Amino acid sequence: MSKSFSVSSKIRGTYDVYFIDSLREHLTQLATQKNNIFLIDATVAQLFKNDIQQAVAGSRIVILHCNEENKTINYAQEIIRELIQQDVRKNDVLIAIGGGIAQDIVTFISSILFRGVNWKFYPTTLLAQCDSCIGSKSSINFDQFKNLLGTFNPPSEIFINSTFLNTLSESEIRSGIGEMLHYFFSDGIDLAQEVSDNFNQLLTDRSVLPYYIENSLRIKKAIIEIDEFDTSIRHIFNYGHTFGHAIEAITHYGIPHGQAISIGMDLANYISLSLNMITDAQFTQMHSILVKNIPAFKFEGSIIDQYLKALSKDKKNVGNKLGCILTRGPGRLEKVFIDMDEKLKTLILNYTEAYGY
Amino acid sequence: MSKSFSVSSKIRGTYDVYFIDSLREHLTQLATQKNNIFLIDATVAQLFKNDIQQAVAGSRIVILHCNEENKTINYAQEIIRELIQQDVRKNDVLIAIGGGIAQDIVTFISSILFRGVNWKFYPTTLLAQCDSCIGSKSSINFDQFKNLLGTFNPPSEIFINSTFLNTLSESEIRSGIGEMLHYFFSDGIDLAQEVSDNFNQLLTDRSVLPYYIENSLRIKKAIIEIDEFDTSIRHIFNYGHTFGHAIEAITHYGIPHGQAISIGMDLANYISLSLNMITDAQFTQMHSILVKNIPAFKFEGSIIDQYLKALSKDKKNVGNKLGCILTRGPGRLEKVFIDMDEKLKTLILNYTEAYGY
Repeated sequence: MSKSFSVSSKIRGTYDVYFIDSLREHLTQLATQKNNIFLIDATVAQLFKNDIQQAVAGSRIVILHCNEENKTINYAQEIIRELIQQDVRKNDVLIAIGGGIAQDIVTFISSILFRGVNWKFYPTTLLAQCDSCIGSKSSINFDQFKNLLGTFNPPSEIFINSTFLNTLSESEIRSGIGEMLHYFFSDGIDLAQEVSDNFNQLLTDRSVLPYYIENSLRIKKAIIEIDEFDTSIRHIFNYGHTFGHAIEAITHYGIPHGQAISIGMDLANYISLSLNMITDAQFTQMHSILVKNIPAFKFEGSIIDQYLKALSKDKKNVGNKLGCILTRGPGRLEKVFIDMDEKLKTLILNYTEAYGY
Repeated sequence: MSKSFSVSSKIRGTYDVYFIDSLREHLTQLATQKNNIFLIDATVAQLFKNDIQQAVAGSRIVILHCNEENKTINYAQEIIRELIQQDVRKNDVLIAIGGGIAQDIVTFISSILFRGVNWKFYPTTLLAQCDSCIGSKSSINFDQFKNLLGTFNPPSEIFINSTFLNTLSESEIRSGIGEMLHYFFSDGIDLAQEVSDNFNQLLTDRSVLPYYIENSLRIKKAIIEIDEFDTSIRHIFNYGHTFGHAIEAITHYGIPHGQAISIGMDLANYISLSLNMITDAQFTQMHSILVKNIPAFKFEGSIIDQYLKALSKDKKNVGNKLGCILTRGPGRLEKVFIDMDEKLKTLILNYTEAYGY
């Protein structure tokens, strides 16, 4: 293992993130411990048949079918039933291999089975590697409500390996880049500018990604160690997300998460500019970085009203005020409540007129 | 409010236990806060119609049907659906009024809804008042497995009022007494002896109970503050429980919990005696106290084999060893692993021969 760092947690004391060199070797070693049960995303199991399945052959394995429809309590119960069939015990360790949805399901199961079991995690998407793998959260859908339920329960160990990134599409890489940019902008301008300067390389050369992943996690770590349960300062990481989530909702998740929050950050910056929180030059500098990761999208026709309606449902709102994170410049994010009125609508239409395409 | 004390928690910082004088007044006051939602056990709602329903009229109310069959994730999901219909928000507070099952259901919901919401608790049974209301645990049944799932999430405030005890049956009082005795024996002999000396008064005069409840909670508090997640020293509170649970299982819960653990403690003491961990005099002293709360029961015929099988399924076992809490005398409990063999069977049969009736 080349590098590692620890994250302190109120739930678990500390947990560790390792950047591992050889996936197969590492998994083979883990498979020698008989109290490990591997829960593997079906797609990942198929794509990395040689590395994974051979390494863990002989261990207890449960295959996870990770899609939004299975991010539910009912699917978690199905998996618990499979774990019981495999004679799961309280001192067993669940080893999750997959992306964010696998993480959500295994975090949730680990939180409730025997009132909590130990789990470890190999994140396989860029989004999971650069963001969700630390921070303790699970998000579970309930009826028509996305992410209404969840728990906090971090893995005891996280193993990051770039092999998994080889099979990701450009769209998935862009999604991860959007999430990383939101951490980088919370910290300053330098890392975001580096992403911009090397943008094409990030899309094509997986070997450069671990550097950005590590920086992204280190920025997140500093905040979640202070506010693990997301009641105060961790709110700054909603930067781009309030505006981005509503884009995802109205496009029925047609725009990948990290790209939607790239638009969300740009819009948050535009609103910050209108409130004189940043200068034209600051907006332009950040826009020149973000635009590389922003897909074609315009708030046109009936979309703007759907969008405002989606924003009005955000659970961080208070009354008719939209609770969102704006910026006073790179590294200076701030929670602001803004009126959801005609002025906001006009502002968003002006934004899309100027920068949408 | 006459008395209160705080319990420190890794999950919640601290939470408070209040002994309240007037239920109706207290509830009326709580009902003025519009972000409170009352989740009330159906039987309690019926029995205390005047005190409760009038006090909380105008508030959001969800009625809980508390039975073992509803101590499930599926019932929790039904209640979450009702809460959503009542427009539950993340900053709402769930106010549970009921016994241990209401507590299990509301603890579990509070743990997973919006990744955790605040809740408060009016325990209404002696068992819930003297024991389960502090300690953070929920226990949820899964398929045929009792208490396989659960979470840790204490209420932020607990309100103990003896009005609720007025409608309890003698059997329910005896169940609470058994649980209290197990705390008292973990602490020494004095409080257990007091219970014994005043046994008939405890059965008939509800006004004497708060004194014992408070002592029971104070003993529990000292241990759970050290080991909230039940990984070490809190194990001592399995005293009487390992042997008691197996009695409950084979009698299909025909013997109330606290009475089953009274037998369980007596049997644990008998085994301790056989291992020379206590003297004859110590056994006899403790037996003279416990016997007042022990119902007619004998390990006869096929029961002994069913019993050993039930013991063998205890999740605290390691291999063929039964993990249980024995005693070196009042206040000196100790975790011991004993062989589940013919010797144990003979010992239990000798116990039942000598002390069963």
